[in-house]
Amino acid sequence: MAVLSELGLVDHHCHSVAGGELDRPGFEAYLTEATDPAAAGGSTFDTPLGLAVRRWCAPVLGLPPHADPADYVARRAGLGPAEVNRRLLGAAGATDLLVDTGFRPRGSLSTVELAAAGSVRVHEVVRLETVAEQAAAGASAADFAAGFAARLEQAARVAVAVKSIAAYRTGLDLDPTRPSQAEVTWAAGAWLGRPGWPRLDDPTLTRHLLWTAVDLGLPIQLHTGFGDPDQRLHRSDPALLSDFCAATAGAGTPLLLLHCYPYHRQASYLASVHRHVHVDVGLTLNHVGARATAVLAETMELAPFGKLLYSSDAYGLAELFFLGAVQFRRALGAVLGGWQEAGDITGADADRFATMIGAGTARRLYRLDPPDRPDPP
Amino acid sequence: MAVLSELGLVDHHCHSVAGGELDRPGFEAYLTEATDPAAAGGSTFDTPLGLAVRRWCAPVLGLPPHADPADYVARRAGLGPAEVNRRLLGAAGATDLLVDTGFRPRGSLSTVELAAAGSVRVHEVVRLETVAEQAAAGASAADFAAGFAARLEQAARVAVAVKSIAAYRTGLDLDPTRPSQAEVTWAAGAWLGRPGWPRLDDPTLTRHLLWTAVDLGLPIQLHTGFGDPDQRLHRSDPALLSDFCAATAGAGTPLLLLHCYPYHRQASYLASVHRHVHVDVGLTLNHVGARATAVLAETMELAPFGKLLYSSDAYGLAELFFLGAVQFRRALGAVLGGWQEAGDITGADADRFATMIGAGTARRLYRLDPPDRPDPP
Amino acid sequence: MAVLSELGLVDHHCHSVAGGELDRPGFEAYLTEATDPAAAGGSTFDTPLGLAVRRWCAPVLGLPPHADPADYVARRAGLGPAEVNRRLLGAAGATDLLVDTGFRPRGSLSTVELAAAGSVRVHEVVRLETVAEQAAAGASAADFAAGFAARLEQAARVAVAVKSIAAYRTGLDLDPTRPSQAEVTWAAGAWLGRPGWPRLDDPTLTRHLLWTAVDLGLPIQLHTGFGDPDQRLHRSDPALLSDFCAATAGAGTPLLLLHCYPYHRQASYLASVHRHVHVDVGLTLNHVGARATAVLAETMELAPFGKLLYSSDAYGLAELFFLGAVQFRRALGAVLGGWQEAGDITGADADRFATMIGAGTARRLYRLDPPDRPDPP
Repeated sequence: MAVLSELGLVDHHCHSVAGGELDRPGFEAYLTEATDPAAAGGSTFDTPLGLAVRRWCAPVLGLPPHADPADYVARRAGLGPAEVNRRLLGAAGATDLLVDTGFRPRGSLSTVELAAAGSVRVHEVVRLETVAEQAAAGASAADFAAGFAARLEQAARVAVAVKSIAAYRTGLDLDPTRPSQAEVTWAAGAWLGRPGWPRLDDPTLTRHLLWTAVDLGLPIQLHTGFGDPDQRLHRSDPALLSDFCAATAGAGTPLLLLHCYPYHRQASYLASVHRHVHVDVGLTLNHVGARATAVLAETMELAPFGKLLYSSDAYGLAELFFLGAVQFRRALGAVLGGWQEAGDITGADADRFATMIGAGTARRLYRLDPPDRPDPP
Repeated sequence: MAVLSELGLVDHHCHSVAGGELDRPGFEAYLTEATDPAAAGGSTFDTPLGLAVRRWCAPVLGLPPHADPADYVARRAGLGPAEVNRRLLGAAGATDLLVDTGFRPRGSLSTVELAAAGSVRVHEVVRLETVAEQAAAGASAADFAAGFAARLEQAARVAVAVKSIAAYRTGLDLDPTRPSQAEVTWAAGAWLGRPGWPRLDDPTLTRHLLWTAVDLGLPIQLHTGFGDPDQRLHRSDPALLSDFCAATAGAGTPLLLLHCYPYHRQASYLASVHRHVHVDVGLTLNHVGARATAVLAETMELAPFGKLLYSSDAYGLAELFFLGAVQFRRALGAVLGGWQEAGDITGADADRFATMIGAGTARRLYRLDPPDRPDPP
Repeated sequence: MAVLSELGLVDHHCHSVAGGELDRPGFEAYLTEATDPAAAGGSTFDTPLGLAVRRWCAPVLGLPPHADPADYVARRAGLGPAEVNRRLLGAAGATDLLVDTGFRPRGSLSTVELAAAGSVRVHEVVRLETVAEQAAAGASAADFAAGFAARLEQAARVAVAVKSIAAYRTGLDLDPTRPSQAEVTWAAGAWLGRPGWPRLDDPTLTRHLLWTAVDLGLPIQLHTGFGDPDQRLHRSDPALLSDFCAATAGAGTPLLLLHCYPYHRQASYLASVHRHVHVDVGLTLNHVGARATAVLAETMELAPFGKLLYSSDAYGLAELFFLGAVQFRRALGAVLGGWQEAGDITGADADRFATMIGAGTARRLYRLDPPDRPDPP
């Protein structure tokens, strides 16, 4: 679809990119969600994602498609990180990146550097758990809640969204109700006195973070589905958020379910019945490689077309910004194009939905300026 | 497949159709499972179901495929509800409708009116919760069970099946055992004294309803999988019925798992190992639009071909009766036809299975007269 | 793919084959996971597996594809079990079978007989629960653990792997930690005094069996996903093993998730983040028939190619050894071949991965001799 190949994407959830050189182990470590790259039982190039890197990224770096992994890493080193980042970020064709600044890999670019490297506008997404962990330093149980609220409001002055990793910390099978002030104080006291501090994994506090964000009104991005092995997959099923979705329907604060796989159909369902719930498969399209079309098609079974978004969840490698965009354009084009060929949709509607999914809906939800109007200095 | 395009379907689970005119908001409200049509984040026409309405229904009303939503609704109004219903119900090509009378939208046709509008035979399916709620009026805790049994037996004289919406009321993660009489009396007492009465959502009473139906012997239709946001998706997984299926195997009363998505593979598995368990994806084929073939194909991975049925779960709109039939014929034809092309099945077997799935098995289970023999007056 | 059609497979999980004649009910009983073949609601030939038998096995027995079931069973009887087994096992093209000897159908071949019938090498897989139930005979609570360890070590001298059916006995939602010696003794005492003895279904003992196997170091095969109705499907979801995978990562003993369906994507995820976790869909490819390619493709979305294996889970019928191999070659060829056609992978990589998945990885994990070197006498 022509509209998709030219569309300036809004990548509504990503991280920063490594600024320095990467040797082969360093590069391979970014191609897996495993903490230990040896989990691949060989090279992480021997994965669906690894195949996609060789096919799609090699030509951007001036190599033939399917270049040998050793050649690829060598070519990368030869060009240097600045040029590699410039080429791949540029080829991604995004106009706006929404960057989760809650966890920044060592040696990665600042948001200003990232904007320059990619010639894109960068917007900040604030991670709730990080803000809470910062607020906890030196706080007492009694003033934690006020301190967190103050910090979050301050962060929200520059951020366009907040992000929750409750799926990692407690699982999504949370009590959906808002905790009382007394409960929060009590839980804060227990947490601040714990040896594991400051990692916030208390369910009451996690609920408090979420409800504070609901009150704030900025869109809330929620990690759901697969991720690194620090989580328990079945406790990240977005269907577990059913009650939270129902409880927050009145407030209207947008919820954005990220990644979702292998529960993307569940997420798509929630987006179909709750006005404030949206969905994208983020991380997934990068990792499933040649299967991106199949997975995206499943995600498009129930969700209204106005509730779908695009993100790469890129982290560390400029390749992941580019590949996320490649797979998204390819997969969405294949799904909508296939429907068009079968007579299920008109070209005009296909173009309209593609534009909404790749940029328009994100632009509206996050109140981003139109792409042709430069940001104020 | 020729046999499929001509087959008189038994739509073994549906509701009634609206008898009056519908303006655009009224029409759009029926195109979503959301309580609030604004959940679509725009028009509910911008969904897989909305696309299918424009493609398939528009020509039946004399418009070109993919007609504009405004034109579609205007044309509908121009023809008037009686003509719209006549055309779309007729085009569905069903010989028999099994109508769940437990929840009838305001202004919808009676079963007699529906039969006349569609030139079909209409059979009644009695909703257990509705019967129980009626039996509760004026009952004491001690005589609720007897009153329910009496009402259910009376209803069963004209009904061909019963329906359970336990998925909505308690979730399917129920204790599978039959409650004792004392437990039922105790639970009835608690329920009858509760402010929320008469909505029956007590787990003990839900189990009692199910086991009373098992004793009655009429086929039991069970809502599983997605539906409106009043339910919790993950508690509607039909796999949660594993123990209930095992516990009721001896009785032999047929269980019919409806809708099932996104847990249709789980439902298909249960149908493959339990003699009395059957499956159809009902509601799903309508809502997933162009993806109907993919979803039906997944449902056909484990279930024996003799355990699959067809239903539209149509509700309110004549469009949904017609579209359900279109998607079913199209999807089943694509699955079986694809297998035939690949050499996996003979044409004779494909025809045989299509006939069983679309009509034969339902006819046998519900003891319906053959299609060419008119109902007794 | 040429490499796949000629590859000598390692079938890393199967059972033995019936040695005697089978009449039609006897044959049909093996075509379903149901305890009661009537669960098919007709003939078990009217299932995806039944269609595959008629298509692929009939020609091996000298009948045309899609032969009538009655003709098929008659032809089988005419050839006699020895010839049927010889033909079908031979046509499977496996060099090595890893046979779970924990449950042997009456009248099935011994491992020596199976090796002769199939001209293959047979390796033993020891079932933990069977060893434990044998160790319990005459044991006291205090010496059960030592007796089990001794028996397991002895069994391990000839076995290449152990197998756990915890999914059937307790479900996989187990406490992942190693039980203390006192807990094991206490649980053994309770178990040995129970009426249901010797069926081992105590969670503490199940954990003890698993951790004893982790210490032993032989690869552990785990039943996950669907099976016969003795299990509860949703409690067999391999995602429930997340914590156990994390807890055993340090030990490094290989875990092999078998079958997995309909949770194969969950299993594939675990294989992608845990170094010692591997996955294959075993039983599934046989049962889903013409849908084998679709299911295998889903399984290949996350797992590194070096973490996938092949098994048939064949049981009773020589047909299942053959069909498992046919579906595997066909499905893997279609997935990798499709990717090659679309430019997603080179032919050399596709061949390399196919060889790893069909034989190489199993050979390495189970330390099997290369195929061209005969076993020592």
